[in-house]
Amino acid sequence: MGLRLGELVERLGGQLIGDPNIEVIGIAPLTDAGASHISFLSNSKFRTQAGQSQAAALIVSANDDPVVAQTYQGARIVVKNPYVHFARTAQYFESLTAVVPAPGIHASAVVDPSAQVDATAHIGPRVVVEAGAVIGPGAVIEAGCFIGRNAQVGEGTHFFANVTFQHGCVIGKRGVLHSGAVIGTDGFGFANEGGVYIKIPQVGRVVIGDDVDIGANTTVDRGALANTIIEDGVKLDNQIQIGHNCHIGAHTAMAGCVGVAGSAKIGKYCTFGGAAMVLGHLTIADHVHVSSGSMVSRSILEPGQYTGFYPLAKNSEWEKSAAIVRNLSAMREKIRTLEKTIKTITNQAEES
Amino acid sequence: MGLRLGELVERLGGQLIGDPNIEVIGIAPLTDAGASHISFLSNSKFRTQAGQSQAAALIVSANDDPVVAQTYQGARIVVKNPYVHFARTAQYFESLTAVVPAPGIHASAVVDPSAQVDATAHIGPRVVVEAGAVIGPGAVIEAGCFIGRNAQVGEGTHFFANVTFQHGCVIGKRGVLHSGAVIGTDGFGFANEGGVYIKIPQVGRVVIGDDVDIGANTTVDRGALANTIIEDGVKLDNQIQIGHNCHIGAHTAMAGCVGVAGSAKIGKYCTFGGAAMVLGHLTIADHVHVSSGSMVSRSILEPGQYTGFYPLAKNSEWEKSAAIVRNLSAMREKIRTLEKTIKTITNQAEES
Amino acid sequence: MGLRLGELVERLGGQLIGDPNIEVIGIAPLTDAGASHISFLSNSKFRTQAGQSQAAALIVSANDDPVVAQTYQGARIVVKNPYVHFARTAQYFESLTAVVPAPGIHASAVVDPSAQVDATAHIGPRVVVEAGAVIGPGAVIEAGCFIGRNAQVGEGTHFFANVTFQHGCVIGKRGVLHSGAVIGTDGFGFANEGGVYIKIPQVGRVVIGDDVDIGANTTVDRGALANTIIEDGVKLDNQIQIGHNCHIGAHTAMAGCVGVAGSAKIGKYCTFGGAAMVLGHLTIADHVHVSSGSMVSRSILEPGQYTGFYPLAKNSEWEKSAAIVRNLSAMREKIRTLEKTIKTITNQAEES
Repeated sequence: MGLRLGELVERLGGQLIGDPNIEVIGIAPLTDAGASHISFLSNSKFRTQAGQSQAAALIVSANDDPVVAQTYQGARIVVKNPYVHFARTAQYFESLTAVVPAPGIHASAVVDPSAQVDATAHIGPRVVVEAGAVIGPGAVIEAGCFIGRNAQVGEGTHFFANVTFQHGCVIGKRGVLHSGAVIGTDGFGFANEGGVYIKIPQVGRVVIGDDVDIGANTTVDRGALANTIIEDGVKLDNQIQIGHNCHIGAHTAMAGCVGVAGSAKIGKYCTFGGAAMVLGHLTIADHVHVSSGSMVSRSILEPGQYTGFYPLAKNSEWEKSAAIVRNLSAMREKIRTLEKTIKTITNQAEES
Repeated sequence: MGLRLGELVERLGGQLIGDPNIEVIGIAPLTDAGASHISFLSNSKFRTQAGQSQAAALIVSANDDPVVAQTYQGARIVVKNPYVHFARTAQYFESLTAVVPAPGIHASAVVDPSAQVDATAHIGPRVVVEAGAVIGPGAVIEAGCFIGRNAQVGEGTHFFANVTFQHGCVIGKRGVLHSGAVIGTDGFGFANEGGVYIKIPQVGRVVIGDDVDIGANTTVDRGALANTIIEDGVKLDNQIQIGHNCHIGAHTAMAGCVGVAGSAKIGKYCTFGGAAMVLGHLTIADHVHVSSGSMVSRSILEPGQYTGFYPLAKNSEWEKSAAIVRNLSAMREKIRTLEKTIKTITNQAEES
Repeated sequence: MGLRLGELVERLGGQLIGDPNIEVIGIAPLTDAGASHISFLSNSKFRTQAGQSQAAALIVSANDDPVVAQTYQGARIVVKNPYVHFARTAQYFESLTAVVPAPGIHASAVVDPSAQVDATAHIGPRVVVEAGAVIGPGAVIEAGCFIGRNAQVGEGTHFFANVTFQHGCVIGKRGVLHSGAVIGTDGFGFANEGGVYIKIPQVGRVVIGDDVDIGANTTVDRGALANTIIEDGVKLDNQIQIGHNCHIGAHTAMAGCVGVAGSAKIGKYCTFGGAAMVLGHLTIADHVHVSSGSMVSRSILEPGQYTGFYPLAKNSEWEKSAAIVRNLSAMREKIRTLEKTIKTITNQAEES
């Protein structure tokens, strides 16, 4: 059941240095890989480990290859970007064993007669599809998902078990929504009248482009008047919250636990580290990178890496530094006093 | 299908300056509104945009009206609080087209014979209602919700798809629970015996008042011995965690990703920005406002606005400031040394 | 229906000072307990309250007992660790009234014929169990849960309603998964090719030991190549995110909203306060305690308590201190200038 290296290179490219008839049965990290695995070197600082790897074959860059080849015994597949090549190779291996859900609607699903479910789509057990919803070709809607009325799911998009996709929302092609994701609930919009909140109906939708991944238990609110927009290629990890009316530019990625408040406009090709937070109504330019745990409290109009979290310390040291941070203006005052005193001393010295 | 301005004013109040027979079909923001929309000006800094709006009618305050009227061509509805009036107008528009779920129990729902479901309530597909639960008049329980044994849902309360409401918990009238919300799971209570955790059964409940909104994937733990209490009019956004035994005062609002640890007592009319955190067993007075991303690590007994997050900077600048923050006590020492040295110099000068 | 103190002591240990025939019907906090309750004193600072408690009986340490006995009128159960004894007593009370779900598979559940469900396990309404899954003796899978293909659930493990447990994942004995928990979704792994993300298949699993509790809406990602590991006795609160390939050591506990990025290796007997965050690929030693709201951005190799959050202040004070924090390097420069100036003055004084 192994895969010939020759076949791999034919399908995925790369320059094979070694026997094309060697067979591999899977991918493994450098140190775990054995004689039936292929491995990869994507970071030059692991050249030594690569050189000693027991893997049958190694995906390696032209830059690292000469060094690795000095000690590594197996076959090499020399490519431009080993990490991307690893991803494609792993995808190919996975495709060979993937359990593809069969087309058709499970008997326990509840599908409104006015919904349009493509004949090639899979609707799993206990799924509910409401009136007017449209499920595209090859889409997979796993057990327990809810698709609201008039929602649209594009071709080849995959909802894992227990996704909630509210009425009127739209997702494009090849998307992935993980379990517990909730798309299209009401944004947090209230007018305050004498302390009491009056709800503002949220009549916009969530409109999601192609090739978007949304993680487990991530929530995306529908727009208040306009729509919440997530452009093509956006990748959202788990436990993320996107507020109403947000606009997330194409190919932006956010790690787990990020929060984006309402009406934020985020550019393309941005990255957000875990638990980064963005306040509402801000604008973030393209190619902005926000570090984990950082609070974005103003718009960022220039590309670059931005950070803002309190450095970790032993608790006793933190207590000292935090006490001073609380009183930094007192410290500044002391410095001003010192400056004045010294100025007086210097002047007196000059005068005398 | 339009709505006459005259009818709107009759229903919702306000002083109409313009033709009552003008018809509008919906609400739109100032810059998007066209000849068939009504819009609103709730912030004086947008007076110029209001003056140029193409909206057929404008909700405006008495204060802003004279300025806007100089250039704005459409009808005006002059009111005390335009944002509240906008909310009510939007509610009215929504009520005209809202899809109201029909009373009755879907054939695929699993309702225990001992549960009491009002004849006017809606129980959607795949809902489970356990023994002894009570669902009030006009309540809407959408697809996939779980209502535990002896739980009570008040009149007109709406659970969107896939809400989990555990045994014995209670919610009052006109509440809204969004998809993925989980109410009444065990609080995080363990006794530690030699490093091993021994579970403390959580036998309290969650008791929620009237007019409470709870966002998507928000979790509220049941009390350990007593109950977790959420008073009337509280509004919780998405992804919030409320620990066991907490007490949230009436008309307090929390934005997304807030966390409140166990046994915290939070006052009325408070607001918490996104991702604010409150430690356990603290007391927060009424009318306290906590900024986004701030950690509340001590009780707050005075009303006011409180903040505590590290300011964002370019990463290179953050690295510098964070390194100094780590060593603030060294800086303080330097200042003390300077003060002593100067005192010595000054004393010598006086003596000489 | 009361429980005799004599019976309690026989079952759970402790030295009873008082009438063994006194009956109690439940546990209550010191100040709420009445003549039919048992209470406990686990913190010496509440001795006065204990001395005045109306409880019929009190669980107390040998250390506190003599002081409490001076005023307290009821029976005392003297034990080594009152909080642990309280936990065990509460467990026993709960066991008397607990509703134990009956063995068997609900008619509305969808269980693949190739799944192995033990005859003593409970499978609730609307549950889906996919092909090859194994559900152990006495396991309880409540309404709406999803168990993926080839997943394994150990003896006596309890899934509350609406848990998602993905294919191939494993959990040991006596575990508890709370509603909305999602175990085994894909980790956040992508290779970037010219700005576009290429998915790396996540082919590892999540492997969970015995006696593990996982809170509501908590998410644990499956491994990329290897597995994500959660060892015995780990306790995770609600809304936690554990990234792919993480390894959480035995008896470590995390409070709500914690996030752990991918490939972090966390030791045994650690604790993490609410909303603490751990970056990826870090190593945390055994017995490390991280305070709430703290960002762990480097490995921690020494046991101890670590903290890093910006101290809360009135907003106006925070604005001052935050402005200085942004410019701490300017302040350091001023101090350096002062030091130089003073050195010059001192040198001149010495020279003159």
